[in-house]
Amino acid sequence: MRYELYYWPGIQGRGEYVRLALEDAGADYTDVARGARGMAAMMTMMEAKGTPPFAPPFLKAGKLVIGQTANILFYLGSRHGLAPKTEAGGLWVHQLQLTITDLVLEIHDTHHPLGPTLYYEDQRGPAKKRTEEFWNERVPKYLGYFERLLGDSGGSWLTGRRLTYVDLSLFQIVEGLRYAFPKRMKGFEWNIPGLIGLHDRVAARPNIKAYLTSDRRIAFNEDGIFRHYKELDA
Amino acid sequence: MRYELYYWPGIQGRGEYVRLALEDAGADYTDVARGARGMAAMMTMMEAKGTPPFAPPFLKAGKLVIGQTANILFYLGSRHGLAPKTEAGGLWVHQLQLTITDLVLEIHDTHHPLGPTLYYEDQRGPAKKRTEEFWNERVPKYLGYFERLLGDSGGSWLTGRRLTYVDLSLFQIVEGLRYAFPKRMKGFEWNIPGLIGLHDRVAARPNIKAYLTSDRRIAFNEDGIFRHYKELDA
Repeated sequence: MRYELYYWPGIQGRGEYVRLALEDAGADYTDVARGARGMAAMMTMMEAKGTPPFAPPFLKAGKLVIGQTANILFYLGSRHGLAPKTEAGGLWVHQLQLTITDLVLEIHDTHHPLGPTLYYEDQRGPAKKRTEEFWNERVPKYLGYFERLLGDSGGSWLTGRRLTYVDLSLFQIVEGLRYAFPKRMKGFEWNIPGLIGLHDRVAARPNIKAYLTSDRRIAFNEDGIFRHYKELDA
Repeated sequence: MRYELYYWPGIQGRGEYVRLALEDAGADYTDVARGARGMAAMMTMMEAKGTPPFAPPFLKAGKLVIGQTANILFYLGSRHGLAPKTEAGGLWVHQLQLTITDLVLEIHDTHHPLGPTLYYEDQRGPAKKRTEEFWNERVPKYLGYFERLLGDSGGSWLTGRRLTYVDLSLFQIVEGLRYAFPKRMKGFEWNIPGLIGLHDRVAARPNIKAYLTSDRRIAFNEDGIFRHYKELDA
């Protein structure tokens, strides 16, 4: 079966967590909205009856249309060996992904504290304050949590000896924070040697390595979740 | 089996979506942190090895410890007839709950746009702006989406003829918005007659009705997600 991924064509955004899972699994998929008439197809799906998603990303898998990043990964994980087979293991990995979802939204809100509908340029002052709080309080809390779990896992990956989609997502978090906040991240990385090692192991996986240098990987830019604004990286 | 729910004792917060599901199902549970030494027990669980949750709420179900509100509901839904039995149905209802999760965070951010670690009093200006955006753009988008789904469902509940945990959560959204923004909500409700009807049907369910008048239901207050600040309801 060929999956159809629907997501905004110009950014990595939340779609990237799904792309990394599909790529690592070597799954067959089309990134629909990047193709001709893809955006129109995406909009039609969102206006349909039945199970229309509230927002991208969503994945068409045969007759199923699955929305919400973590929900898509939950579905893919069980089918492509990217999650434990047991109910308890599946719930635990999903729980971790939902915690990453929360972190991703807080990253987005560093440049959009007044909401997703205003431009960054209209909220630069609040963005500076929110970013300060984010790096003082939230980054240590979130990344400290994952660093602790990795240390306790007894394996190379967050939940032990087998990679899950959560490891792929943590790779993206490290990669994105390095892009958006190079100075701050440089000063912070010594706190999370485990996660940096995990990031490097993910980057070295053959399918991921091939993906990252392909044109399927969209470059980071200032329309996505991870944005580099110099004044926020002071 | 008696479930153990762990959540901050003084607020409804995110724990309330779990409480409503447990109550409607007539499940046996303890609200641990509201009891003697409950907070200490909650902290111990979060510092444990194994599968420590990042944050409350979390649910102990036998040996399982499940965190993240939507993940807990996913688990309870399949066991207590609060979600469809099929994989497709279960994923769809979970997806809707994750969309409610996003809405709940946006509601929280109306009074905390600069992040969860500062006091409301330190961000009143940005809160006013974010609240304005929230009511102009986001409430119509989110509640319009659920109103549309309800209209298309062909039943009394969001996904058709059988109630799911999503209906219980939507009850709480209406209830909370009425508490936090009575004036704004009064002006908006005519847009969502279906959801108001759904709210009333949930409130009339015997187990929910009994719960809402019991002392197990914590009153809304200005430490929770839904806070009433007059200046934000102008």
